[in-house]
Amino acid sequence: MSACRALRSSSNALVRFSAARLTRPVAVSLNSRRRFAASALTMSSFYPNWEPEGPTVKTEIPGPQAKAAIADLDEVFDTRSLNMLTDYSRSSGNYIADPDGNVLLDVYAQIASIPLGYNNPALRKASQSDAMINGLINRPALGNFPPAEWAEILRTGILKVAPKGLDQVFTAMAGSDANETAYKAAFMYRRQRDRGGPDVEFTEEEMNSAMANQSPGASNQLSILSFKTAFHGRLFGSLSTTRSKPIHKLDIPAFDWPQATFPELKYPLEAHAAENAEAERAALDEVERLITTYHAPPCAVVVEPIQSEGGDNHASPAFFRGLREVTRRHGVLLIVDEVQTGVGATGRFWAHEHWDLPHPPDMVTFSKKAQTAGYYFGDPRLRPNKPYRQFNTWMGDPARALLFRAIVDEVERLDLVQHTARVGEYLFGKLEGLAEKYPGEFADLRGKGMGTFIAFDSPRRDEFLARAKTLGLNIGGSGQRAVRLRPMLVFEEKHADILVDVLERIVTSW
Amino acid sequence: MSACRALRSSSNALVRFSAARLTRPVAVSLNSRRRFAASALTMSSFYPNWEPEGPTVKTEIPGPQAKAAIADLDEVFDTRSLNMLTDYSRSSGNYIADPDGNVLLDVYAQIASIPLGYNNPALRKASQSDAMINGLINRPALGNFPPAEWAEILRTGILKVAPKGLDQVFTAMAGSDANETAYKAAFMYRRQRDRGGPDVEFTEEEMNSAMANQSPGASNQLSILSFKTAFHGRLFGSLSTTRSKPIHKLDIPAFDWPQATFPELKYPLEAHAAENAEAERAALDEVERLITTYHAPPCAVVVEPIQSEGGDNHASPAFFRGLREVTRRHGVLLIVDEVQTGVGATGRFWAHEHWDLPHPPDMVTFSKKAQTAGYYFGDPRLRPNKPYRQFNTWMGDPARALLFRAIVDEVERLDLVQHTARVGEYLFGKLEGLAEKYPGEFADLRGKGMGTFIAFDSPRRDEFLARAKTLGLNIGGSGQRAVRLRPMLVFEEKHADILVDVLERIVTSW
Repeated sequence: MSACRALRSSSNALVRFSAARLTRPVAVSLNSRRRFAASALTMSSFYPNWEPEGPTVKTEIPGPQAKAAIADLDEVFDTRSLNMLTDYSRSSGNYIADPDGNVLLDVYAQIASIPLGYNNPALRKASQSDAMINGLINRPALGNFPPAEWAEILRTGILKVAPKGLDQVFTAMAGSDANETAYKAAFMYRRQRDRGGPDVEFTEEEMNSAMANQSPGASNQLSILSFKTAFHGRLFGSLSTTRSKPIHKLDIPAFDWPQATFPELKYPLEAHAAENAEAERAALDEVERLITTYHAPPCAVVVEPIQSEGGDNHASPAFFRGLREVTRRHGVLLIVDEVQTGVGATGRFWAHEHWDLPHPPDMVTFSKKAQTAGYYFGDPRLRPNKPYRQFNTWMGDPARALLFRAIVDEVERLDLVQHTARVGEYLFGKLEGLAEKYPGEFADLRGKGMGTFIAFDSPRRDEFLARAKTLGLNIGGSGQRAVRLRPMLVFEEKHADILVDVLERIVTSW
Repeated sequence: MSACRALRSSSNALVRFSAARLTRPVAVSLNSRRRFAASALTMSSFYPNWEPEGPTVKTEIPGPQAKAAIADLDEVFDTRSLNMLTDYSRSSGNYIADPDGNVLLDVYAQIASIPLGYNNPALRKASQSDAMINGLINRPALGNFPPAEWAEILRTGILKVAPKGLDQVFTAMAGSDANETAYKAAFMYRRQRDRGGPDVEFTEEEMNSAMANQSPGASNQLSILSFKTAFHGRLFGSLSTTRSKPIHKLDIPAFDWPQATFPELKYPLEAHAAENAEAERAALDEVERLITTYHAPPCAVVVEPIQSEGGDNHASPAFFRGLREVTRRHGVLLIVDEVQTGVGATGRFWAHEHWDLPHPPDMVTFSKKAQTAGYYFGDPRLRPNKPYRQFNTWMGDPARALLFRAIVDEVERLDLVQHTARVGEYLFGKLEGLAEKYPGEFADLRGKGMGTFIAFDSPRRDEFLARAKTLGLNIGGSGQRAVRLRPMLVFEEKHADILVDVLERIVTSW
C-alpha cells in the first residue's frame, strides 16, 4: 500500500531525470523491460534490476520472525541498541530488508557508512577478485610485511582521492583509531619541534617517565582541543575529545583536555547573518584563548566539517578558514575529522573542499563510507622521527582498502559526487516546501548546498523515527532533536520523492 | 643451496611422522607423486601440493626488485619498520615469498597472526562463499542492524571456541580496541557496583563532570593495573597499560595507572624453583598492595598469559591462580589478554587453559590468529546497564568473523591444537639439544609444554634475526634480547627440522 502511494507520487517528478539517465547504455533484461512499461523507476537506477520500486511494509517492525531471532541473539550479544534486524541478502540498492519481508527505503545507511547501496554489483565483482581473496586469507602486518602491490593499491584507491595537499596516508581500522593515531602523530610532532628537531635524542628522564605514564616522557602537559557536541570516537583518547552526550562518556576515564564552543547557528541563515557571524567570531576567540592559556596547551585542534552525531551542527566556510588561520598562527595542527562527512555525501568528495582553504588541514581522517580508515597528511615531519613509534600489527586491512578502491572507481565512473550534489539540491527544495507547509515540524532545516547531508529538528523526534519505520522508511536521529538524512550516493530524485512523501505522512498522522 | 641442505638434514627425522600422516587420505596429483619419490615432505603436509620443500634464497633480502618497490612505496607510506616486502600470491603454507623469488620458512607469521598458513585452501574456499561476499559488500553497523544470521555466525565461530565460563562476546576490530572496550566494561561495572546497582540513575553532577572529562562522571579516580614489560596495544587507553619499551610510549599522554612487577623467572626452572616461587609471591604481594593502596584503585587487572612483545616472559600456573584469587578477594576484575597467545599456539586453544583456574577470568580478549577481535565475558552484569554505553559504528567485521569460523572449523578438522602441542614438544627437545651444544647462544630457553610458543635469548639478537633471513628463515624478536618463535598451527616436525638446522647454522657462522 505505502509502496504504491510512494510510487505514484514520485513518477511524475522523475521524467526529466530518467530521460537524462537513459542516454547511458544499460543492459536491460526482458523482465526489467516489462516493468519499464509500468514506470520509469527501474530504468533510472544505476544498475539494472537492482532495486524494488518502493518500500513494502508487511508486519510491524520487528515482526514475528525478527522478534524470535532477536531474543535468540540476545542470549549471546547485547541487543538493546538494536534498531532493525536485517536480511542483507534481500536488501538492495537504497532498500534495506528484514526477516519478515519488510523492505524499507534506507536513508540511515548503517550510520552513514554504506556508500553505494546494498549488494552493489560492482562491489560484488571486486569482492570476488583474486586480489580480494589474497587480501582476506593472507592478512599482512602492513608495517612489517606490506604486499609488493601495496603502493599501487594505495595510489589507485585511498590516495587517488587524497585531499589536496595531503599525499601520504597512515592506514587504520575504523574512525576511532584513525583519529587516535592522528592525535598520536600530533603529539609526537609537537614534542619533536619543542625538543629542537628530529635528531635530538630522548633524555633518560623522558624515557623513564614515559614508562611510568608520567611527564615529561608522556605528554600529559599537552592536549587535543575539540568542540562541544563533537563526536570523534569512543576509545579512551578519542572519547576524551568526544563531547556528544553523557551516556557516551559516563564512567570512562578521560584526559584533562579543553573544549571550545561550537558556534550555534540560527536558521534560516539569511535572517541571522550578523548574529551567526558574531557566534563564529566568539567561538574562534575562545579557541585562541584556550590555545594560549589552557594549562595543558593543545598541540592540535580536531573538528568535524559538520558535527554529525552531535546533531548536524554546521558552521560557515569563513569559520573554518578562521580556524585554519588561528591554528597556523599559533603553530597548532588542524585535524579535520571526515569520518562521517567524507566520500561524497556533501556534494564534494571531502566536505572541507567547501571551505576554499588557503592552506590544507594538517591531517584528515576518514572511515565509514570508505569502508576502511586512516589519516591523510602532507608534511613529512608528521612521520615520527623513528620507526615503530606509529605502528601496530595490522595497521588496517588490505581487503577493505581494495573495497574502497572499487568504491572510488564506481564513484568516478557514475559521477556520484556531482550526482549527489544535484539530488541534494532537489531534495532540499522539497524539504523547504514541507517546512513551510508544516511550521515547527521540520525546524531549522540545514545542509543547503551540502549534497544530501541534510537535517532538521523535530519536536517529537523519537516518535518521528519510530513512525517512519511503519511507513517504510529507515531514518536516523542525532543530537537531542535532529533527524538526520544520510542517504547513500546512489540516492536519486525518485528516492527523494518517496522520502518526502513519507515525511509528510508522518507529520500528518500524529 | 640452503634449501637442499635443509632438505637433506630433515628428511631422515621425518620418516616416523610422515608414515603416521599417510594414514590420512590425501588427494595426490601426478606431480606431487613424482616429488614423493624424492622426499616424504610433500606428502606429510596438511594440504596436497601446497608448500615448497624448503626455503630458497636467491638474492640478498631485500633484493633488487624489492629495493625498487620499497623506495616507491616509501613515497606514500612510511617504510622504516618494513621487515620484508612480501609477494603473498607466491607465499604458501609455512613459506613466505618476496618479489625477488626468495622463499623463507616463516616462524614469525605476521607478528603471530597467521593461523593456518598462506593461501590456505580451506580459507580460500570460505572467502569465496556467498556469506563472505555478503559480509564484505554489505558491512553492517552490528549494534544497530545486525544480520539475521549474526547469532548463528557467532555460535558456530567466535563462541564455539569461547573460554569455559564465558558465553558472551563483544566484537571489535583488533587487539587494541578489544582491550580498550574490555577496560570500558570494567570501569562501568565497578562504578555500577559502587553506585548501588544497575537501577541507580546517574546524578546531574556525574553527567556534567563527564562532559568536562572530570571526576566523578569520568572515572579518573579509578585505574587498570597492568604489569611491567606488558604489551596491550597502542591506542591511548591500551597504551597506558602497555609497559614494553619507551619507543612505544614516548610523547603520548597516558593515564596515571599503576604497574606491578611481573615475576622474572630464572632458567632452567627446575634449578630455581624456590627462587622463582618467591619472585611470584612477591609479585602477587605487590598486586595486592597496589589494589589496596594505589591512589586511583584498579577496577581490573590485565595480564598476558605469556608476556609476548615484552620478551616472552612466563609465569607459573600457580602465579595466575594466585592472581585470580587476589583479584576475586578484592572485587577486582581479571582481564586475560590472549591477543597473541590465543588460538592454539600454546598447545591449548587458549593459553589460560594451562592454569586450571577454579574460577574463570572475567574477560578474555582475542585478536591476531582469530583474524577478528573482541572480548569474551560471562557475568551478565558486564553488559552495561543501558544501551549505547558500549557501542560504535561497526563493532567488528562480519567478513573477518566468518574467516575465524572457517579457521575454527579447520583447527577442529585437522586437530591442530593437539598437533601443535606435539610439534612443540618435538621442537623444544631439539632446541634443548642446541642450547646444550652452544652454551650462551640459546639462553633461557622457555616455553616447555607451551606448544610452539617458544623463545630464547641471544647475545646478539638483532644480528641473529638478520642472519636468519640470509639462510632462508623469517623469525622475529621481542623484548631486549629474545628470539621468539611464532610458527603457524600448520607447522610440522619437518619444518621444525629445517628451523633447527638454520638456527644451528646461524650460531656456527658468526
